[in-house]
Amino acid sequence: MTHSTQKHLILNAFLMSTGHHEASWRLPESDPFAHLDVAHFQRLAQIAERGRLDSVFFADSPVLWGDIGRRPSGALEPTVLLTAIAMATQRIGLVATASTTYNDPFNLARRFASVDVVSGGRAGWNVVTTAGPDAAGNFGLDDQPAHSERYERAAEFLEVAYRLWDSWDDDAPLGDKASGVWGDQARIRAIDHVGRHFRVRGPLNLPRSPQGRPVIVQAGSSEDGKILASRHAEAVFTAQQTLDDALAFYRDLKLRTAAMGRDPDSIKILPGIVPVIGGTEEEAQRLERDLDELIRPEYAVAQLARTLKVRPEDLPLDAQLPADLPDEDEIEGAKSRYTLILALARREHLTVRELLGRVGGGRGHRTFIGTPEQVADAITEWYAAGAADGFNIMPAVLPSGLEAFVDHVVPLLVRRGLFRDEYTGTTLREHYGLERPTNLYATTHPTSERTPA
Amino acid sequence: MTHSTQKHLILNAFLMSTGHHEASWRLPESDPFAHLDVAHFQRLAQIAERGRLDSVFFADSPVLWGDIGRRPSGALEPTVLLTAIAMATQRIGLVATASTTYNDPFNLARRFASVDVVSGGRAGWNVVTTAGPDAAGNFGLDDQPAHSERYERAAEFLEVAYRLWDSWDDDAPLGDKASGVWGDQARIRAIDHVGRHFRVRGPLNLPRSPQGRPVIVQAGSSEDGKILASRHAEAVFTAQQTLDDALAFYRDLKLRTAAMGRDPDSIKILPGIVPVIGGTEEEAQRLERDLDELIRPEYAVAQLARTLKVRPEDLPLDAQLPADLPDEDEIEGAKSRYTLILALARREHLTVRELLGRVGGGRGHRTFIGTPEQVADAITEWYAAGAADGFNIMPAVLPSGLEAFVDHVVPLLVRRGLFRDEYTGTTLREHYGLERPTNLYATTHPTSERTPA
Repeated sequence: MTHSTQKHLILNAFLMSTGHHEASWRLPESDPFAHLDVAHFQRLAQIAERGRLDSVFFADSPVLWGDIGRRPSGALEPTVLLTAIAMATQRIGLVATASTTYNDPFNLARRFASVDVVSGGRAGWNVVTTAGPDAAGNFGLDDQPAHSERYERAAEFLEVAYRLWDSWDDDAPLGDKASGVWGDQARIRAIDHVGRHFRVRGPLNLPRSPQGRPVIVQAGSSEDGKILASRHAEAVFTAQQTLDDALAFYRDLKLRTAAMGRDPDSIKILPGIVPVIGGTEEEAQRLERDLDELIRPEYAVAQLARTLKVRPEDLPLDAQLPADLPDEDEIEGAKSRYTLILALARREHLTVRELLGRVGGGRGHRTFIGTPEQVADAITEWYAAGAADGFNIMPAVLPSGLEAFVDHVVPLLVRRGLFRDEYTGTTLREHYGLERPTNLYATTHPTSERTPA
Repeated sequence: MTHSTQKHLILNAFLMSTGHHEASWRLPESDPFAHLDVAHFQRLAQIAERGRLDSVFFADSPVLWGDIGRRPSGALEPTVLLTAIAMATQRIGLVATASTTYNDPFNLARRFASVDVVSGGRAGWNVVTTAGPDAAGNFGLDDQPAHSERYERAAEFLEVAYRLWDSWDDDAPLGDKASGVWGDQARIRAIDHVGRHFRVRGPLNLPRSPQGRPVIVQAGSSEDGKILASRHAEAVFTAQQTLDDALAFYRDLKLRTAAMGRDPDSIKILPGIVPVIGGTEEEAQRLERDLDELIRPEYAVAQLARTLKVRPEDLPLDAQLPADLPDEDEIEGAKSRYTLILALARREHLTVRELLGRVGGGRGHRTFIGTPEQVADAITEWYAAGAADGFNIMPAVLPSGLEAFVDHVVPLLVRRGLFRDEYTGTTLREHYGLERPTNLYATTHPTSERTPA
């Protein structure tokens, strides 16, 4: 399997409050209210942009998770947050998560197109179907729709969104003051979509955005998730703990994408990595230990119990997981996360307490503890082996972990010829090495693919 | 009727692409693509802030209006736009329109709370029910829900939004690093709303925002609209052509608000005014004439025909309106706009051509053409008469019309003691002289109204 056409590996900064380690907010350096402070996120994005990273990314769900006792809770709505960050940065890509289960296509397509316009073509959308009954309860449902139903809706949602984004030809706006004709009505069209989940007339109330459409990102690794990714995703955020698993996932998804008639280079596979960086290995280990000691196990056990669909009392801290947990097939929630945690615990024979340290440190993603040189080696190894087109960098502590990565790991990757030292493009598509999509209506409207004015 | 407790009249800048005159985009000074340029709106807001205006406002509908030939078409999603403007301003209030018919309460309440957070308490929400079958077609409906149905849904939507915004006590977040307890779970709650239109569990995934909730604005003047305003609105944007009509509307709405058990000062009534300002009266008249001559009547007639529910061929340019138009009661769309245009045409015996100039110049709002002194006099007269708590300023041309207002009219109003010369507050509520609402759950949770940390 050869690498994609983009010249460098892709580095995305996955941003979360004071960091991905659940206890990071308790460090002396952290502001427990940072996740509600837009200036905090603007600074983080500026640090990432200083390192010429491809993009910043925010996870999201339309629900308040778990117990607010445990860690900073609540989240600014991601398209609002991306817009604020766009105003404080020039080049870096901006990826937000939004649910196809709890939005409707017209409003969401418009919102992402708007972010793409105000950012000059830097928007990406992580398409999620939102697991769990809690979110469902905020939208009039007693429980979440079935997993397969959610993914079917997601696929139809995307088809509608593509047509809305393409409902104006690129040259529909004219702005002809002399004749008094602002636009060519013949170059926009209703989409008249009628499907199982949606009926949407269109057109969108925005011209085609700078990127044509935002970059489509996908993050679930269940069977349904992989099918959706192979059809639609241009980047995939995935959690892989071992090189073998990462290689297998990478090969499988590239083959599936090719089988859909798509160029395998048009999908970028980006495993998450939680780097814990120290000047020496001992310093890095100490930082990780300090963080793990700040975890309050009673909260973490409750969270783990929810994920595993058991009661907290079924998870004594110093025992391994119960043997009789359900198969992934029986789970209607976040399947890939369930499987990953279970496999990690079984493979390494972890006790619940040990598992909490690993999961609490990065939500099941691969934690890599070491010097900048060691972190750069780990990245290089997977990239060179063909297990990744790049990485979703998930600093355990923010901003210090991102600063350490940008200032000490990125220069090593640049020196090795694996990463850019200057941006060469202005849009997220250009950073990722993705083409601007052709307008879906181009064939029926031969004039529609002229160069925009 | 006495004036409200705020010391000055309220001045809001209603922003729209290159101005409220439909032909403004054809002027040499105008950029026909300004409505897609976030920097344009940031500059406008900065001009308004230079004049210490209370707020900027954007109309909106989730649909592409009419024919794109006529005037700049499409609009950035307003909460995205407000966020971008918040990043470029410090004090001015930020009011966006969003539909209760085509949104759901959880997502929209969260979005406005997010804008309130990122702007430091400057958000306002103009609550609309969105008339017309075209918007309905973008959301799976064949036609709009009935007028009364839309307003019933709006009222329930607001009740849900209030409870979501209040679902955290102000002091629920603790951020206690030493104990490792971020928040007090006992001080947040599910709202468990079950109504005719919505079932929403809650809580919101955000703490209470700086203003407690955004300022609630309402703009319809139909009977249903006035009932909604009297129960919920803290500011009302209204179109009134004559002082008598404005006085009657003001008195009626203040009395209705008092009848709902609310302080009449807690609702601010702001008629729209389209000032066309010149150094001399002749210069102002010339500017207006230049603009009217740039209107293309074939587009304007089609638009007027849609509003009046007739065919364009029923509206010959040099005749008055047909005598047999339906009553407001028979209209399911934008009732107050329909009535206003009809009354204007009948009262002044306007031909269709004359009516188009008046409507195209400011969509049925009161156009005032004159010198800064004359515009200041017009504002003073209505304010002193008790016909308004302030005005929604709708410049015919942007930015030049807003600059003329800020630089030449505002200083006269300041000199007359009618308007502030410096901001005294930081939130939109403080600018408008509105209280921060008490948490709805305060009575059942006696500790909930402590001062936030």
